[in-house]
Amino acid sequence: MKTYINPNRADWAQIASRRISSDDAVESRVLQILAEVKSKGDVALRRLALQIDGFAPEQFEVSEAEFAEAENCVTEAMKQAIAQAADNIRKFHSAQKFEPIEVENGAGVKCIQRAVPIQRVGLYIPGGSAPLFSTVLMLAIPAVVAGCPHIVMCTPTGKTGKVAPEVLYAARMCGVQMVYKIGGAQAVAAMAYGTESVLKVDKIFGPGNRYVTKAKQHVSVSDVAIDMPAGPSEVLVVADESAEVSFAAADILSQAEHGPDSQAILVCSTTDFAERAEAEVQRQLALLPRAAIASQALDNSRIVVLESRDEQIEFINYYAPEHLIILCADAWSVANRITASGSVFVGAYSPESAGDYASGTNHTLPTSGWAKAYSGVNLDSYMRKITYQELTREGLSALATTIVTMAEGEGLDAHAAAVKVRLKGGQND
Amino acid sequence: MKTYINPNRADWAQIASRRISSDDAVESRVLQILAEVKSKGDVALRRLALQIDGFAPEQFEVSEAEFAEAENCVTEAMKQAIAQAADNIRKFHSAQKFEPIEVENGAGVKCIQRAVPIQRVGLYIPGGSAPLFSTVLMLAIPAVVAGCPHIVMCTPTGKTGKVAPEVLYAARMCGVQMVYKIGGAQAVAAMAYGTESVLKVDKIFGPGNRYVTKAKQHVSVSDVAIDMPAGPSEVLVVADESAEVSFAAADILSQAEHGPDSQAILVCSTTDFAERAEAEVQRQLALLPRAAIASQALDNSRIVVLESRDEQIEFINYYAPEHLIILCADAWSVANRITASGSVFVGAYSPESAGDYASGTNHTLPTSGWAKAYSGVNLDSYMRKITYQELTREGLSALATTIVTMAEGEGLDAHAAAVKVRLKGGQND
Repeated sequence: MKTYINPNRADWAQIASRRISSDDAVESRVLQILAEVKSKGDVALRRLALQIDGFAPEQFEVSEAEFAEAENCVTEAMKQAIAQAADNIRKFHSAQKFEPIEVENGAGVKCIQRAVPIQRVGLYIPGGSAPLFSTVLMLAIPAVVAGCPHIVMCTPTGKTGKVAPEVLYAARMCGVQMVYKIGGAQAVAAMAYGTESVLKVDKIFGPGNRYVTKAKQHVSVSDVAIDMPAGPSEVLVVADESAEVSFAAADILSQAEHGPDSQAILVCSTTDFAERAEAEVQRQLALLPRAAIASQALDNSRIVVLESRDEQIEFINYYAPEHLIILCADAWSVANRITASGSVFVGAYSPESAGDYASGTNHTLPTSGWAKAYSGVNLDSYMRKITYQELTREGLSALATTIVTMAEGEGLDAHAAAVKVRLKGGQND
Repeated sequence: MKTYINPNRADWAQIASRRISSDDAVESRVLQILAEVKSKGDVALRRLALQIDGFAPEQFEVSEAEFAEAENCVTEAMKQAIAQAADNIRKFHSAQKFEPIEVENGAGVKCIQRAVPIQRVGLYIPGGSAPLFSTVLMLAIPAVVAGCPHIVMCTPTGKTGKVAPEVLYAARMCGVQMVYKIGGAQAVAAMAYGTESVLKVDKIFGPGNRYVTKAKQHVSVSDVAIDMPAGPSEVLVVADESAEVSFAAADILSQAEHGPDSQAILVCSTTDFAERAEAEVQRQLALLPRAAIASQALDNSRIVVLESRDEQIEFINYYAPEHLIILCADAWSVANRITASGSVFVGAYSPESAGDYASGTNHTLPTSGWAKAYSGVNLDSYMRKITYQELTREGLSALATTIVTMAEGEGLDAHAAAVKVRLKGGQND
């Protein structure tokens, strides 16, 4: 990890930079895949599965027999773990339910805001190097809590032709009925456009590789909403002198093991702490099965020594970390000043892995600085807010002068006329 | 307006289609403008203003003298109208304030969700054929209510070199300090990238012409969040036999006058009503100053006769109108079944123009079917939700088996290690 000691403000942009992988080959391949699935549906999905995975399932939808087989393969210990995590996630997301708001803006002018579930949501669960069944919980539970009537899930099988049993078990346990064995950009295309097998959805959620991310980006322009722009995972650990160096190092490594393009930033106030942390990271790194991956991520990671607390806070909000871990004696006094972070882990016993799996918060969070403008996935992500208004004749009269004056001021006479026609009376009067 | 009588479900896609203007010339021009502003900042803004508007202001930022002059130009009647509208908008958006949520998931596992304002927001107010000062209220008031510390507004002057006085008056009245005389794609670029004069923002709001819309779309991919994808404005009026035909016609026309690509849909249950509505639209059209524009929009508008209420509801949700006006005796029984619409106008005395200006709801709403997945602009649009968690050692212990089991199941051993290192003890114990 490169260390920066009291860097100038002018260097912050470089220190806070993320590794951007822009790849024209990925871009053009994704555009091909999207076009093919859009025009040829299931035929394209089958052709692409054969070409990319070397295997195309007879039917894309996971059968009851496959769900049953998966359930048999999952250990009791894992079932209990998933159950505890799911309970906590369900409880926290249920607490986010939105109560309708009703305001009376003068007699006879009622304004209401209510939340309704998005009708069709699509969840993408990556396969790849590890079966991310925790992501099933994070994406499916709030969809079910929100009351989304149609929940579609896509996940790749790779050459084995099978989905990881934990993924299927978790999906069914959460209440997801439609799971399709489709991965990559073609899964995004299938959910965005719909095919003979796959329901077109209104919004697509979930992480994925560069192809999935690029495909989501493209379909979001004119076909379907997405949860948020995606980038490699990242953590910022801020530690004061009271912090246990081994905790900070473990948190840095639990981020680094995600992938070679992950990033960990340690912000601390002394070079002594920085040096001890670096040494401890190296010590713990040697013990990890995924040391090779973590080590690449560390090349892209940084230690930033900033003496003043104000500057530390400013830097954190500037970086806008996906995950922020606060290993400080007065952790809440830091947390309360954070304006840009996906999720905040307060105090020594709140490692990122708690939130990644089991405490109840969501782990699908904005990366790459998007935490300046995006929230992580939460119950809102699965709902839309609709406003309603109901005016009586009296209510409309009370606003009439205002509406007519403003409409005519904007040159929109028909807007004014829609008020006048109602107030001059008609057969319903 | 073309009339469809009990159309087959297979024809709905065509009936619900919007006019899509895709224009490669716009696309490439916008990309040029974005690149130029990104690399050359104010110099580019000045060059583009001269080239496109034939006029470049000496300084982009509106001065105190200009604000004062604008205030002098606005009539008392307009000031009163703006004040009443602003009060209602402020009241409704203030009622949307979010209270923190705190859940204890077992002893020592605290999960919290809070809302924080987005720090830097950019508001775009179109100039063009009419000065949309109502949009100033709709975009600026919730930004101020949310507590966004930096609010930037851009609006074009055109050849006059002046911003419409109502726009400046409304901006200052709402509490916006930074207003820049910059329009079009270059304004979007300035707010997305920042220039010497213009603050880079985290999220851009507001409607605009095809250049503005395309520019927002492009910058949203990797630079800045946007409120929502944009398309031409639209209304769907659903009327039963009790409805006053003149109200329905006035609502259709108040949509049609927005622009040639606006769309109005009337859903009713009899051909008799359809014919009377069509005749009344033609009668009222002749009286309008903007009849030429409205008439083009009507070419793109439709009457859909559907006998069954269930089918009507299904069609409305399929179309997902930006505005839905319900002229039915039992209007709420329709409203309560709507899952996809931006804003709903319930009953005979709730014309769209009430919500466009003064009732208190927001008029920045999802078009082109995006109401299936997007909310209109509301207080949430200016805030982010951050989750926090604070675990005690006891709390972490209670989750440890679950976290470790799941992390190891996903092959992420460092995630497990970050828990183990904390529970085996350290110098802080």
